Amino acid sequence: MKKTIGILGGMGPLATADLYRKIVLLTKASCDNDHIRVFIDSNSHIADRTAAILSGGADPVPEMESALRNLEKCGADCIIMPCNTAHFFLPKLQEKTKIPFISMLEATAKACAKQYPGKTAAILATKGTLSTGLYERALEKENVSFVLPDEAQRDMLMYLIYEVVKASKPLEPELENWAALLLQLRKAGADYFILGCTELPIIADTLPIVGPFIDPTAELAKAAIRFCGYEVKE
Amino acid sequence: MKKTIGILGGMGPLATADLYRKIVLLTKASCDNDHIRVFIDSNSHIADRTAAILSGGADPVPEMESALRNLEKCGADCIIMPCNTAHFFLPKLQEKTKIPFISMLEATAKACAKQYPGKTAAILATKGTLSTGLYERALEKENVSFVLPDEAQRDMLMYLIYEVVKASKPLEPELENWAALLLQLRKAGADYFILGCTELPIIADTLPIVGPFIDPTAELAKAAIRFCGYEVKE
Repeated sequence: MKKTIGILGGMGPLATADLYRKIVLLTKASCDNDHIRVFIDSNSHIADRTAAILSGGADPVPEMESALRNLEKCGADCIIMPCNTAHFFLPKLQEKTKIPFISMLEATAKACAKQYPGKTAAILATKGTLSTGLYERALEKENVSFVLPDEAQRDMLMYLIYEVVKASKPLEPELENWAALLLQLRKAGADYFILGCTELPIIADTLPIVGPFIDPTAELAKAAIRFCGYEVKE
Repeated sequence: MKKTIGILGGMGPLATADLYRKIVLLTKASCDNDHIRVFIDSNSHIADRTAAILSGGADPVPEMESALRNLEKCGADCIIMPCNTAHFFLPKLQEKTKIPFISMLEATAKACAKQYPGKTAAILATKGTLSTGLYERALEKENVSFVLPDEAQRDMLMYLIYEVVKASKPLEPELENWAALLLQLRKAGADYFILGCTELPIIADTLPIVGPFIDPTAELAKAAIRFCGYEVKE
């Protein structure tokens, strides 16, 4: 019996839809029945992760646990979360269940090491994720070198993530801001970009600016497909 | 307390992802917490609906019921199914649960009557859906006139749905077939097209042929958003 995936979602909802769609598109399949059974709880009650880490916002763990219990009841064999910042709470959640979590950050770091050996990544992420040092540690473990956005660049990332994608605003007017951000990081030494907030692949897919990018949502999808005993479509 | 949605999915998986994404994009929201809590069981074990209706294929109801039980455990307040043909089995499933199903076909017929009064629809659907007469009855109830595809056109629809979308094949080579099909139906009296198989909005979004189309996946998303007490984004 092949395994199933549980998506602890809602962080945000569009990123959850993106992860689920990527699992479907990246699974080698020729009919409905060749696909993986996927359970999703897109729980819109989960408190903001960055606010909880940086500014004493409400604890997201209780509502994350509520979704986790639903995925347990459904019979998920692994849990994945389409939110990089949420991975700060992964150890706490892993203590509460026997179902293994698959880490998006570890899957991403492994993809960086394999696809861009000897090159330097720029980490594009929320202030919450960057403050935890989680990406730095995951990349160091795989010997991947990286540069970090400065304070003004972090402000721009937060604007794009919170005031544009999460606020359901049109992306097109942001093309110039997005291009400028990437150019600055390239000048600071970046050879490629980690789209380290799950709202960013949604921007990157739509705005016609060439990376190269590493898409953690796609890397997590591939890691979960392989964990379940299915083949990744090349 | 606002209501939640349960998606009885996997029929097919890409159509399930499309429905979920449309719910997110069509909900009026300015942050993650403004969205609807959505539970999904994308159950890839559900037997093919058209084969069950037309050619004695395996009964899809047991695996549909398995997904239904999971959505009940999660606490869904309504159930929606991203598969027109599956609606043939809706009465059987409704008998098994107190949670109300929202019918994609009824939502679509209402949208046709409102958006194209006095005009004629062409019903694009699987042979399974067409053989049940479900769409015809839903449209007649709303006084919507329609034309049906002939046998050759039904063969082309089955090819596009099963050999292209469900088989994860590229859509671009099908542009000419798709355009010819629509042109023929227009000559037969159609003013607009009901994309009455959930794999078809995926084609229609990608291939640049102007309808006008009625997208039952979007109409179902809107009906579910309103049922849950949220506002549809215009």
